[in-house]
Amino acid sequence: MKQFQVELGNQSYPVLIGSGVLTRAGRILHSLGFRTAPVVVSNRRVLRLHGSSLLRSLENAFGPVMILRAGDGERFKQHSTLIRLYRDLIRGRADRRSWIIAFGGGVIGDLAGFAAATYMRGIPYVGVPTTLLAQVDSSVGGKVGVNLAEGKNLIGAFHQPRAVLSDTGALGTLPPRELASGLFEVVKCGAIRSEELFRYLERNVADLRQCLSPVVSHIIFEAMRVKAAVVAEDEREGRERMVLNFGHTLGHALEAASAYRRFNHGEAVAWGMIAAAELSNSLGMLEARDAARIAALVHRIERLPALRGISAARIWANLRRDKKFDSGSIRMVLLSRLGQAEIVENLDPRYVRRFISEFLGTHQQVLCSEV
Amino acid sequence: MKQFQVELGNQSYPVLIGSGVLTRAGRILHSLGFRTAPVVVSNRRVLRLHGSSLLRSLENAFGPVMILRAGDGERFKQHSTLIRLYRDLIRGRADRRSWIIAFGGGVIGDLAGFAAATYMRGIPYVGVPTTLLAQVDSSVGGKVGVNLAEGKNLIGAFHQPRAVLSDTGALGTLPPRELASGLFEVVKCGAIRSEELFRYLERNVADLRQCLSPVVSHIIFEAMRVKAAVVAEDEREGRERMVLNFGHTLGHALEAASAYRRFNHGEAVAWGMIAAAELSNSLGMLEARDAARIAALVHRIERLPALRGISAARIWANLRRDKKFDSGSIRMVLLSRLGQAEIVENLDPRYVRRFISEFLGTHQQVLCSEV
Repeated sequence: MKQFQVELGNQSYPVLIGSGVLTRAGRILHSLGFRTAPVVVSNRRVLRLHGSSLLRSLENAFGPVMILRAGDGERFKQHSTLIRLYRDLIRGRADRRSWIIAFGGGVIGDLAGFAAATYMRGIPYVGVPTTLLAQVDSSVGGKVGVNLAEGKNLIGAFHQPRAVLSDTGALGTLPPRELASGLFEVVKCGAIRSEELFRYLERNVADLRQCLSPVVSHIIFEAMRVKAAVVAEDEREGRERMVLNFGHTLGHALEAASAYRRFNHGEAVAWGMIAAAELSNSLGMLEARDAARIAALVHRIERLPALRGISAARIWANLRRDKKFDSGSIRMVLLSRLGQAEIVENLDPRYVRRFISEFLGTHQQVLCSEV
Repeated sequence: MKQFQVELGNQSYPVLIGSGVLTRAGRILHSLGFRTAPVVVSNRRVLRLHGSSLLRSLENAFGPVMILRAGDGERFKQHSTLIRLYRDLIRGRADRRSWIIAFGGGVIGDLAGFAAATYMRGIPYVGVPTTLLAQVDSSVGGKVGVNLAEGKNLIGAFHQPRAVLSDTGALGTLPPRELASGLFEVVKCGAIRSEELFRYLERNVADLRQCLSPVVSHIIFEAMRVKAAVVAEDEREGRERMVLNFGHTLGHALEAASAYRRFNHGEAVAWGMIAAAELSNSLGMLEARDAARIAALVHRIERLPALRGISAARIWANLRRDKKFDSGSIRMVLLSRLGQAEIVENLDPRYVRRFISEFLGTHQQVLCSEV
């Protein structure tokens, strides 16, 4: 089992990663000072696949555990689910000394974390992420929240977990596209901060696709380390933390331009990273072969859904709604080399727009896979 | 104009109190570093009575201001209002650099403050309380939130304002019972921490009922000082902060026992303080004449709605739902002298229950006023 500490002053917390963490969760959490039984927030699928080992361990350590089920999927990450959670907490007599375990993927983490942030003005929570994406991404950083019809993550808070327990054993049941989604997040961490991690991914991509535990543990650890380091420098949404958005500006626009149907979030970000790397190269910041390495690694991880039929105009329209588009000029995270991200201000919108058209033109022809 | 600083490390903020603060709000907030136009959250009544002076001042300093109206009254302090506020913020293109002014009484402060705490994971807000209760109480402390059908303030956050501007001129339009409600909160501050403030109230009760500005400014300043000192010692809901609940345990039970109809919150707390003082005396902690001074001051401020018809059994049933009732024994804030509160643990429930019956018996006969 690997462990490190996210350093946030008096809000610091440990992250534990390894195979079999679920079966030891009760003892681990007891040793971290918890004494009463937690409220476990999860969904039916996660409970069916991995519930018994976690729950048995928790019950051994703390006695009977209250379990609250939320729906499975992004569309449940909204106020009606949240209010049902609040009501269930009240009915279950949860009070200020209660604590929550968010047991599932990113949606459960965001929902349960936000419920914890706001129930009785805030109670503690522990993250037990069961997807690779949640293990490398949303479980570190303290961002919690829900969507509104108008957009994702518009409502939320910063609420740091007391601990994060990531069992790599839980990843074996992930659908391949979800696994890939998490791997793209790791690629991002390598690209922006750690060429070493990037090279490790290149060398071990075959084992990663098969989810071999020691290899996966290593990359989760390294990706979390990258993320924790960035977050520790900048807990709130300041400038430094922006580098974590590498690939996301174009990725979000691509998701929206395809009505959130063709790509999952990771796949859209993967295309966004390929595009951002090529843009970095076209601006003379990044060498062509480094941009090519990003595209090659992404495509070895998964054959991405094609860009065919996506119009540059629609991507552009969605980009312009993005918060990074400050009154005319564009701010983006680009690369100066593998392992080194730069926040570039004042990009010329006309240049970026032309680049998007050209990028779509090239990649729609060369890399089209069947959807 | 009086001013002091609520000391909370890097979350410290100034409180300004005086007549005419509204007309100077724009300049004051500009001098505190705000540069863009705020979003003002208020209600129709407050805007009609006091809106023009605040808005003119803000527009002079920052240009056109977005105004969002919430319903007037506790029943609007709930998620449906909150979600409408979120939507209006989005429609008005509020982003992470936007800030909110909560302009109104406690309901507006709690709602707008919680919207600020959670919109895009938190944006700044400034309190401009227009009721005495909000000026002395809810505007200091950073407690924000909404109700659920199951109970008040169950959902919320700690989100400190960037500043609080209290215009005593706004209090002239308050209904007498609302003014009294605020004065009871000041009585509480005197009772728990400042005999000097308590004595000042005794000497000036006639002027206070007429809302004479210098007298009111003085007591707001002193009450805020008491509260700020307690909050500064203990920002989150720890032990120290509990002394601010003096009168509230019995007050809440009384409100609930009368179905929230007969007493407003301040009046229920006023009865709660009288009862807590008598209980302190019956336990040998507080001298009888000090308990009598509390009752006398309260009754000079307002002829409280009578206790007639309220059953001890119902108060007791509601008390037992209170969080301070830990597995059998009772924790309450009592007085050891005027100006000195004590948190008393392990009160014998049978003793407290008998006391409540006796208290109701005495006060139902002696002090019944017409409702």
